[in-house]
Amino acid sequence: MRKVDLNSDLGESYGRYSCGNDYEVIKRISSANIACGFHAGDPVVMEKTVKFALEEGVAIGAHPGLPDLMGFGRRRMEVSLEEVRAYLIYQVAALDGFVKTLGGKLQHVKPHGALYNMAASDYNLARAIAEAIYNLNSELVLVGLANSELIKAAEDVGLRTANEVFADRAYTSDGKLLSRREVGAVIEDGNVIAKRVLKMIVENKVETITGEEIEIKADTICVHGDTEAALALVEQINQTLDENDIEVAPFL
Amino acid sequence: MRKVDLNSDLGESYGRYSCGNDYEVIKRISSANIACGFHAGDPVVMEKTVKFALEEGVAIGAHPGLPDLMGFGRRRMEVSLEEVRAYLIYQVAALDGFVKTLGGKLQHVKPHGALYNMAASDYNLARAIAEAIYNLNSELVLVGLANSELIKAAEDVGLRTANEVFADRAYTSDGKLLSRREVGAVIEDGNVIAKRVLKMIVENKVETITGEEIEIKADTICVHGDTEAALALVEQINQTLDENDIEVAPFL
Amino acid sequence: MRKVDLNSDLGESYGRYSCGNDYEVIKRISSANIACGFHAGDPVVMEKTVKFALEEGVAIGAHPGLPDLMGFGRRRMEVSLEEVRAYLIYQVAALDGFVKTLGGKLQHVKPHGALYNMAASDYNLARAIAEAIYNLNSELVLVGLANSELIKAAEDVGLRTANEVFADRAYTSDGKLLSRREVGAVIEDGNVIAKRVLKMIVENKVETITGEEIEIKADTICVHGDTEAALALVEQINQTLDENDIEVAPFL
Amino acid sequence: MRKVDLNSDLGESYGRYSCGNDYEVIKRISSANIACGFHAGDPVVMEKTVKFALEEGVAIGAHPGLPDLMGFGRRRMEVSLEEVRAYLIYQVAALDGFVKTLGGKLQHVKPHGALYNMAASDYNLARAIAEAIYNLNSELVLVGLANSELIKAAEDVGLRTANEVFADRAYTSDGKLLSRREVGAVIEDGNVIAKRVLKMIVENKVETITGEEIEIKADTICVHGDTEAALALVEQINQTLDENDIEVAPFL
Repeated sequence: MRKVDLNSDLGESYGRYSCGNDYEVIKRISSANIACGFHAGDPVVMEKTVKFALEEGVAIGAHPGLPDLMGFGRRRMEVSLEEVRAYLIYQVAALDGFVKTLGGKLQHVKPHGALYNMAASDYNLARAIAEAIYNLNSELVLVGLANSELIKAAEDVGLRTANEVFADRAYTSDGKLLSRREVGAVIEDGNVIAKRVLKMIVENKVETITGEEIEIKADTICVHGDTEAALALVEQINQTLDENDIEVAPFL
Repeated sequence: MRKVDLNSDLGESYGRYSCGNDYEVIKRISSANIACGFHAGDPVVMEKTVKFALEEGVAIGAHPGLPDLMGFGRRRMEVSLEEVRAYLIYQVAALDGFVKTLGGKLQHVKPHGALYNMAASDYNLARAIAEAIYNLNSELVLVGLANSELIKAAEDVGLRTANEVFADRAYTSDGKLLSRREVGAVIEDGNVIAKRVLKMIVENKVETITGEEIEIKADTICVHGDTEAALALVEQINQTLDENDIEVAPFL
Repeated sequence: MRKVDLNSDLGESYGRYSCGNDYEVIKRISSANIACGFHAGDPVVMEKTVKFALEEGVAIGAHPGLPDLMGFGRRRMEVSLEEVRAYLIYQVAALDGFVKTLGGKLQHVKPHGALYNMAASDYNLARAIAEAIYNLNSELVLVGLANSELIKAAEDVGLRTANEVFADRAYTSDGKLLSRREVGAVIEDGNVIAKRVLKMIVENKVETITGEEIEIKADTICVHGDTEAALALVEQINQTLDENDIEVAPFL
Repeated sequence: MRKVDLNSDLGESYGRYSCGNDYEVIKRISSANIACGFHAGDPVVMEKTVKFALEEGVAIGAHPGLPDLMGFGRRRMEVSLEEVRAYLIYQVAALDGFVKTLGGKLQHVKPHGALYNMAASDYNLARAIAEAIYNLNSELVLVGLANSELIKAAEDVGLRTANEVFADRAYTSDGKLLSRREVGAVIEDGNVIAKRVLKMIVENKVETITGEEIEIKADTICVHGDTEAALALVEQINQTLDENDIEVAPFL
C-alpha cells in the first residue's frame, strides 16, 4: 500500500498569545513540526504540544526558526553559518528535551519560514543546517522543499530526507514555489488541489504555472489548520488519499 | 586523598557583549556552570564555552536562569511551577545539545541568580526544579546552596546533589547566606577566606556572622573570575587546598 | 449631566499574534489604554492602534508594563525604583511618539498587570511611577486602582488622577480587589454588575464581599472585550448608564 | 572659523553588560548617538547616558537600530517599510522622552549598523526612515553616509542633514565605503587618517582606494572609543583640527 506523510506546523502559541488550531489539525496529520521558541513557541507551549502529539500518536519534529519573534521568523536575516549551526542545535536539542522527558522520540527537523526558504536555494546555508542536525543526532530526518538545496545538502551529509510538497501552491518550471506575490501562487480550488496532490504522490509529477509537467518527489505534504477553509482542505486531501488507497503515515 | 570541587559561572557573554574572564578562571576550577540563553549566553557563546570546557578538561554543568536578560536573571519573578519546570528542561536540554554534539557528557545543573535563591528557601519551587531535571536525565547532579530546600528536594526526588558553599560570604546561624545588603556580608581578606574554606572542607563547619559554629557540607566551592582580585583569590584558594593535600576535582 | 469614563486595554497584539477584540470594544468605550511593547504590543501594532483610536474619537492612554512578553506583564518582578522610572519614561514616550506623529494628544497613563497591582499597595513603587510620569509630562492623568497607593502617590506628586473601578470584581472591606483565586472574586451576573456600577458612580459606594458598604470613587470603569460575553456586558453597562443619564466620556 | 562635528556611538551597554568607553570618548566629541534599546541600550542605560551627555555639554542624537540584540543590529533583516517607520518613531520618541525629562533637546537621528548601511543604498528604505523622523519632529537632523541615498531622501523630505564621513575607512570611486572584507578597507596610520580628515573638511575631497580624488561633504566625523588605540586616534584628530583652526562643534 502506498503511503504519504501529512505534516503541519504546531505549537506556535506564545505566552498568553494563542495561535493556530492545533487541536483540530492534529487529528488529520501524521507528523507535527513544533516551534522551538525562537520565532514562536515558549517552553510551556512546547511541553504541552509535545505531550499532545504523543497522546495523538503523531510523529514529532522540531521546527527551528530565526531569532525573530516579532517577525515570526518570516524575515530573512543575514546570519552567519556559525550562528545558524548553533541556533539549530540549541532549538532542536531543547525540543528534544521535552520529547525525551515525555517518553517519545524525535523524528525530524523542518526549518521554519525565512530559514526554510533561504536554505532551499543557498547550498552553504543548507549544508550548515544539515551538518548541525547530523552532529546532534544522525538519526534525524531533515524535511526540506522537494528538489531543493536543503535536500541535496542533507543527502551529502548523510542524513535521511523527506521531500516536502505544498498542496495549494503553484510551482515554477525549475521546481521552486512561485512567490506568494505572483498571481496564481496560491491555489484555492479544493478539487484542483486534491488532484495535484494525488498526481504528486502517484506519478511524482506536478504541472507548473507555465503548463509543463516536472518531476517532483512527495514524501510529505504540508497542510495548515488556521482557518475553517484550511481544515476543510485537509479533510478533502485525507479523503482523496483514502479513496486512492494511500495511507497517511509518518515517513519513518 | 581528600577532594573538593571548585565551580564558576562561565559563558555569560551575549552577542557582541563580552562578560567575565572565562579563559583565566577555567584553568583554576574543576566544574563550569554554563549559561543557557535565558539570563545570559546565546547559542554561539554556549557552543564555544562547551568546547572550551571540554578542551580544558573541566566538568560541564547547565546554569539555567529566569527569562530576564535585561536583569541578568537576578530579579525575582513570580513564575509558576509549570513554567519553572518547562524553563529548566528547555535550557538544560539546549545546553546538553552542544555537550553531546561535541562529544562530552553533562555532569550537573546549577540554577542561576534569583532562581537559585528562590529555590534555596521555597521547597515547592525546589521540588519542581528537581523533578524537571530528574525527568530529563536522572543521572545529573543538582548543585544547590548547602543545607537548602533545593538540596532537600533533590534528595527527595532521587537526584544526586552537590552542596555548594561560598568562600567569601558570611553565613547566618541557620545556614543561609547573609544578604549582600548587610554589613560584613562579603569577606575580602584572602587569608580569612582560605581558612574558612579549609575548615568547611576538613571539619564541615563554618563560623557564622554571630560567632557560633554551624555544620556545613562543602562538596563544591563557588568562585569568580571577573576581576583581578577575584582571580587572585581563586589562586590563593587553590594554593591552600594544595598545601593541605586536598585535590580539586569534579564531584563525580 | 453626570459622566463617567469607560476604559479598556487595547493594542495587545504582537507581530503575527492577534489578541483582543479592539474593533468591537473601541466603539463602546471613551478611553483606550494602549500597550507599549514591554508586555504586549509592538511598534506597528502601537501605530495602528493609536490611529484607530484617533479615528474613533477615543481618548488615548499609555499602558506600560514590566519587561516580560512571555508572561504578558502579569508576573511580579523585583524591579528597582530606578528601573521602574526608566521603564515608564521609555514606554510612555514611545507611545506618545505615535500619538504626536498622528496629530493626537496623550491623555493618561495606566500601568499594566503586575505593575498596576504592585503599585496599588507599595507606596514607594507608586511614587517612582508617579514621579517618572510627572517629569516626562506633568499634564498626564495617572489611572490607578481607586483608593490605592498609586492614587495617593500621584496626588502627592501633583499629577491629576483617575480612580479606576472594576465592574465585575468583588472588593474587600479595605477597598482592595478580592484575589481572583478566592470564591466570588469575579461577578458574572450582568444585572448585578450594572447595579454595582451605577451605585459606584451615583453614590460613590460599593458593597464588599463581606456585606458592608464602603466609599469608592469611580472616575473610570475598566471593561474588557475579549469574549462575546465581555462585549455583551459592556453593552449592558452602556445601556444602564444611558438610562440613568450618565454620559460616557473621557475624564479630561 | 571653520568647524566640524565629531560624533560617536554611546549608551550601548545593556543590563549587566558593559560596552564601550563612554566616559573617555565623550570628552573628545561634540555629538553623541545614543542607542535606543533595539540593538543595544536599555531604559536605565539610556537615561544615564542622556544625563551624562547633558552634563558634558555634548549634543544628543538617537541611534535607532534593527530589533536584533543578539546580532547588535549588524545583521541585515528583511523589514517592511511600515515596520521601519514604526521602529524609528518608537525608538526616537523613547530616547527623546529621557532628553525632555532631563531638560535637553534632541538634535539628530543616526540609524545604526545594518539599518544605516541598508538605507545608504536603498532609496525607498531611506525615504521611509526620513519620513518617519520628519513626521515625528521636523526639526531633527538626519545623519547619514555622505552622498548616500539616506541623505538624498532626507533632503527630499525636507529634513536637515549631516553628511557623515569615516576617518579610518577607505572609499570607492563612487563614494561608498569599501567593504571591511576588502584589503585596505581600514586605515590604521594615524598620520594618514589625520591628513585625510583635514582634506575632507577643508577641500571636501577624499582619495579613493583606486587613487583618484572624489568630492565628499564632511559635516560630521564618526569616531570610536572602544580601545586605547581608538581613543589615541580621536586625540590625534582633535589635535590636527585644533592646529588648523577647525572648531569641533555640533552641526546645529
